[in-house]
Amino acid sequence: MAFGWIDERRRARHRAGLVRTLRPRAPGSPLLDLAGNDYLGLSHHPEVVEGAARAARVWGGGATGSRLVTGTTELHTELERELAAFCGFEAALVFSSGYAANLAAVTALAPHGSLIVSDAGNHASLIDGCRLARGTTQVVAHADPEAVGKALRSHEGPAVAVSDTVFSVDGDAAPLAALAAVCREYGAGLIVDDAHGFGVLGEGGRGAPHAAGLAGAGDVVATLTLSKSLGSQGGAVLGPARVVDHLVDTARTFIFDTGLAPASVGAAFAALRLLRGEPERAARVRAVAGALHAGLTAAGLEAVRPDAAVVSVRAPSPERAVRWAAECRAAGLAVGCFRPPSVPDGVSRLRLTARADLSGEQIERAVRVIGETRP
Amino acid sequence: MAFGWIDERRRARHRAGLVRTLRPRAPGSPLLDLAGNDYLGLSHHPEVVEGAARAARVWGGGATGSRLVTGTTELHTELERELAAFCGFEAALVFSSGYAANLAAVTALAPHGSLIVSDAGNHASLIDGCRLARGTTQVVAHADPEAVGKALRSHEGPAVAVSDTVFSVDGDAAPLAALAAVCREYGAGLIVDDAHGFGVLGEGGRGAPHAAGLAGAGDVVATLTLSKSLGSQGGAVLGPARVVDHLVDTARTFIFDTGLAPASVGAAFAALRLLRGEPERAARVRAVAGALHAGLTAAGLEAVRPDAAVVSVRAPSPERAVRWAAECRAAGLAVGCFRPPSVPDGVSRLRLTARADLSGEQIERAVRVIGETRP
Ligand SMILES: Cc1ncc(COP(=O)(O)O)c(C=O)c1O
Ligand SMILES: Cc1ncc(COP(=O)(O)O)c(C=O)c1O
Repeated sequence: MAFGWIDERRRARHRAGLVRTLRPRAPGSPLLDLAGNDYLGLSHHPEVVEGAARAARVWGGGATGSRLVTGTTELHTELERELAAFCGFEAALVFSSGYAANLAAVTALAPHGSLIVSDAGNHASLIDGCRLARGTTQVVAHADPEAVGKALRSHEGPAVAVSDTVFSVDGDAAPLAALAAVCREYGAGLIVDDAHGFGVLGEGGRGAPHAAGLAGAGDVVATLTLSKSLGSQGGAVLGPARVVDHLVDTARTFIFDTGLAPASVGAAFAALRLLRGEPERAARVRAVAGALHAGLTAAGLEAVRPDAAVVSVRAPSPERAVRWAAECRAAGLAVGCFRPPSVPDGVSRLRLTARADLSGEQIERAVRVIGETRP
Repeated sequence: MAFGWIDERRRARHRAGLVRTLRPRAPGSPLLDLAGNDYLGLSHHPEVVEGAARAARVWGGGATGSRLVTGTTELHTELERELAAFCGFEAALVFSSGYAANLAAVTALAPHGSLIVSDAGNHASLIDGCRLARGTTQVVAHADPEAVGKALRSHEGPAVAVSDTVFSVDGDAAPLAALAAVCREYGAGLIVDDAHGFGVLGEGGRGAPHAAGLAGAGDVVATLTLSKSLGSQGGAVLGPARVVDHLVDTARTFIFDTGLAPASVGAAFAALRLLRGEPERAARVRAVAGALHAGLTAAGLEAVRPDAAVVSVRAPSPERAVRWAAECRAAGLAVGCFRPPSVPDGVSRLRLTARADLSGEQIERAVRVIGETRP
């Protein structure tokens, strides 16, 4: 029977503790949220909500077409201008998601005959970009610029290195300056996914490339998402204007996808203005992450020192990670639970995210609950 | 220099007349729009706009995480329930875009060792799904169930056939009943992308699978987008509950993507209720498409008879298609202009879309302008 094979796979996932369930949120949930990626606490900010509502009123519920046909409003280009200016890049291009932005950047910048050098810890969307690109991918050890250099050395023709700036599972930062140096040595481009750096790292949240002095460089392209620090939806590619023009002409997830909904553009735009006006939000989320890590470590838990907003705590097995997260939830705390295949190394984790608007009391409560429910 | 190779490619596109420019819309543009995919004219409907605004107010500017972590609100599941019920399927799963829904359906349902039989005219997102999937893809002639049967006959193991229901370039419909019959003969699954059928075809806009008697079948999966007939953003996969559960567990563009923004869920939800309450909208858009085609044909233009809302008109070359579209625009009419690589056969076209809310006078004006500006 068609699709009959999926039942056996499902049973195998059941046995391995890897079945996933959707748990719909109710409005105004009383849970303390350390699971979402609303790092700056902006997704419910009245100006962000009003930005979404106003954009829907002016521009309608959807973009109505590809960005190349009817899907570009003046609001899209205004957001692109402000994103580029804020992060220090020449130009920006907005996509319907960060996933789509990553697919676009990697596929459009890695043509037939080129080499892609990809960090082993990269996000699924970068990996899918590598799989879709016409170039050849070489996966290298995690956060290892020397390995990148070795891969680049043996290739003739166009090449790019591709890396998250902050890795989504463990929250550790990539060695951006060293990566850029080795790329320059070999004339390769560098594509970095700043999904978890933007809004958190760099002066006032300008992101990891800005912090590393790479913003605006002719050989650096950054991608980011509007769905985390900006509390909205969508993605963007930042880079030299000629690279952005090239994406407009060739990137399939730009050409063949409906433009980002005006409400999401409006929400992101309002959040960006808030971030620009309140740069302390970025410093605050880093401080909260540090406090979470310090508390967990003091409680004897194995947590990775956070380079940005993500704090990862090891769990002994997928089943016990799930039970741990469930017990946290029963005690009023929402935490993320990452299991295979979402973790490249097969190690299950609780994944906590800092938020700029968490109070000292909330941080203490979170640490207490996680400690008390440990397996 | 890094990215240096893109300049030569850009020059080549210039010479071939294939450079693309973003043309931002102003609010309240006076252009008559026959370019967008807002088939039912719902994207500016007050209830749709208010649906977006209300959802942003209740749920915030973004979903804040993957659907599997914090990104599922009760609104997401409610929309899924209503979409499935309306279209006649057991279950539905909402994605951040139709593009992401197609990547998910094809990759999750075509595992290693399986065969994907893909229509040569399929949308880019289905093609990218085939490229990403672990199965082997065989591209077959356009709208040719016999060719599908021939491909399926020679394969052992899981197989799926993949097709648009209405092809985005020429607006012609796939032979769904025949495709389903041949898939059944060989025990293969059928994945159909109803992006341009949903809201337009079938009883009250229930879509092409419903019209073909395939809705709810155990071996049929439909994808659709919320960005066309529903005037919003997002996508969905409809099918048996076991297939949807399988997607929740394994589809990378579901697991690793932030959930659809609440405002877009709310807009789509409001549009779906309007469509259900006013089923004549679907019949009206088909009538408008027929009237456009009749007018253009009477004016001696080469237009494809529309099976749904898209009316395609041949142009002699990319450059002249661009100039034709520009002259329409100068005369107050926005039309789409499809050129390579957006057209699989290399033939450039004007692409017109019918809208349920076009008046007889507007249809006449559109036909007159297109005729008067013909190259
Ligand atoms: C590192 C990274 N890149 C890209 C994405 C995709 O962004 P989006 O959710 O906006 O599609 C995510 C998470 O969602 C991510 O964690
Ligand atoms: C046939 C078809 N499938 C899928 C898509 C992608 O849907 P979305 O724009 O919602 O990503 C489109 C157009 O955008 C389309 O025309």
